Amino acid sequence: MSGSVTVIGLGPGDPRYLTPAAQAALDAAQDLIGYFPYVARVSERPGLTRHASDNRVEVDRARHALELAAAGRRVAVVSGGDPGVFAMAAAVFEALEAGDPAWRALSITVEPGITAMLAAAARIGAPLGGDFCALSLSDNLKPWEVITARLEAVLTADLVIALYNPISRARPWQLGAALALAAEHRAPETPVIFARAVGRPDEAIRILTLAEAREASADMATLVMIGASATRLIPREGAAPFVYTPRSVAR
Amino acid sequence: MSGSVTVIGLGPGDPRYLTPAAQAALDAAQDLIGYFPYVARVSERPGLTRHASDNRVEVDRARHALELAAAGRRVAVVSGGDPGVFAMAAAVFEALEAGDPAWRALSITVEPGITAMLAAAARIGAPLGGDFCALSLSDNLKPWEVITARLEAVLTADLVIALYNPISRARPWQLGAALALAAEHRAPETPVIFARAVGRPDEAIRILTLAEAREASADMATLVMIGASATRLIPREGAAPFVYTPRSVAR
Repeated sequence: MSGSVTVIGLGPGDPRYLTPAAQAALDAAQDLIGYFPYVARVSERPGLTRHASDNRVEVDRARHALELAAAGRRVAVVSGGDPGVFAMAAAVFEALEAGDPAWRALSITVEPGITAMLAAAARIGAPLGGDFCALSLSDNLKPWEVITARLEAVLTADLVIALYNPISRARPWQLGAALALAAEHRAPETPVIFARAVGRPDEAIRILTLAEAREASADMATLVMIGASATRLIPREGAAPFVYTPRSVAR
Repeated sequence: MSGSVTVIGLGPGDPRYLTPAAQAALDAAQDLIGYFPYVARVSERPGLTRHASDNRVEVDRARHALELAAAGRRVAVVSGGDPGVFAMAAAVFEALEAGDPAWRALSITVEPGITAMLAAAARIGAPLGGDFCALSLSDNLKPWEVITARLEAVLTADLVIALYNPISRARPWQLGAALALAAEHRAPETPVIFARAVGRPDEAIRILTLAEAREASADMATLVMIGASATRLIPREGAAPFVYTPRSVAR
């Protein structure tokens, strides 16, 4: 089979964070598949067919990409951030595993990108300076009991926690419940970051305490980071504080 | 103060993974500070003073960067991968917090990069497709008891685990101990990835089972990823299998 699928991470939004490897893969594509705001980030050009789709149809989208590739097309599947972090790469491999065995002979590659937690961390200091984890708060794909058990574990283990998919119209209460759980393990003054649309013109980053975060609002474009017990602020005059987590844990 | 420090992520090594923002920051620098193999990745040019140093002197290096910036220089501190993930960014903020309060008026920014676990994951499929964590296995900066408690927690919570700094000449047995602990929680056939020098000419990626990994050797340049219970292989004829973790957890 001569077709290919490349799953591409577009990074946080600003093209200055798109890697040259990802740009080259976009330039080589004949078909572009993805959630419509990500497809919209890639300029139209002759020879590129754009297939934008709605959210929450990831496996349909992945299957479509594999079908086009099986027909000989060079297909790019785009995700914001990194495609391997709560994005399209896993969906493509799910579709590959369940689909036509002949698809396994296709060229399938992944181009990494700057995922939201790295972009948000860089903006404010080094909050991920110690051990950390990335959890999706969406209970569309896993039971809420699994999510709370994982949160309990990483709170007890004192990891910094990056929460992806913290909230949506269909999931309005989960973030509040997660922060309430955090408050059982961490002090009210623990730094919590709400990083919205990092690297895009409407970027808004709020450095809150855990107590404040429990009263604050977030949306689908927000990444939430809950500090570990050692995560701290460095105040500055006339500027937002830096937030960082020391590399060391005291003996 | 007119000087600045930019902490720059060089990504995994191949310049095709260096972001344009990071490249622009390198181009603007007057002084370049970092561990010598990272400094060596940046071409010499007139007007750029290179200060390469040995490993394990991160805070000295960070203080030096801040002193140069306080003297009015535009300083770039370079790390492999992402500077916020077990690299120089936290060291710079540690030095800033402990240092001359006047340093807080300096311009200090961080340019994110593709960290090793994202680069390694992209090479083999989508092993980080579910919830995951990043732990440093080095007990230079935290007690071994903290490391094992964290490992126990994330193994029990069934996260995919990326282990940074798995081994060094001074820490020969820690990786074996971590994999022995993993074997108490996960099946012997659980995929374990040893990803060495990803994105560099000597790249070598091994897809092992947990049982095989316990007998395999690694070195300082290796990132180790331990799959979750759902992490699986997609076999291919005449090529390495893909490795991925489904997005869903069964109800």
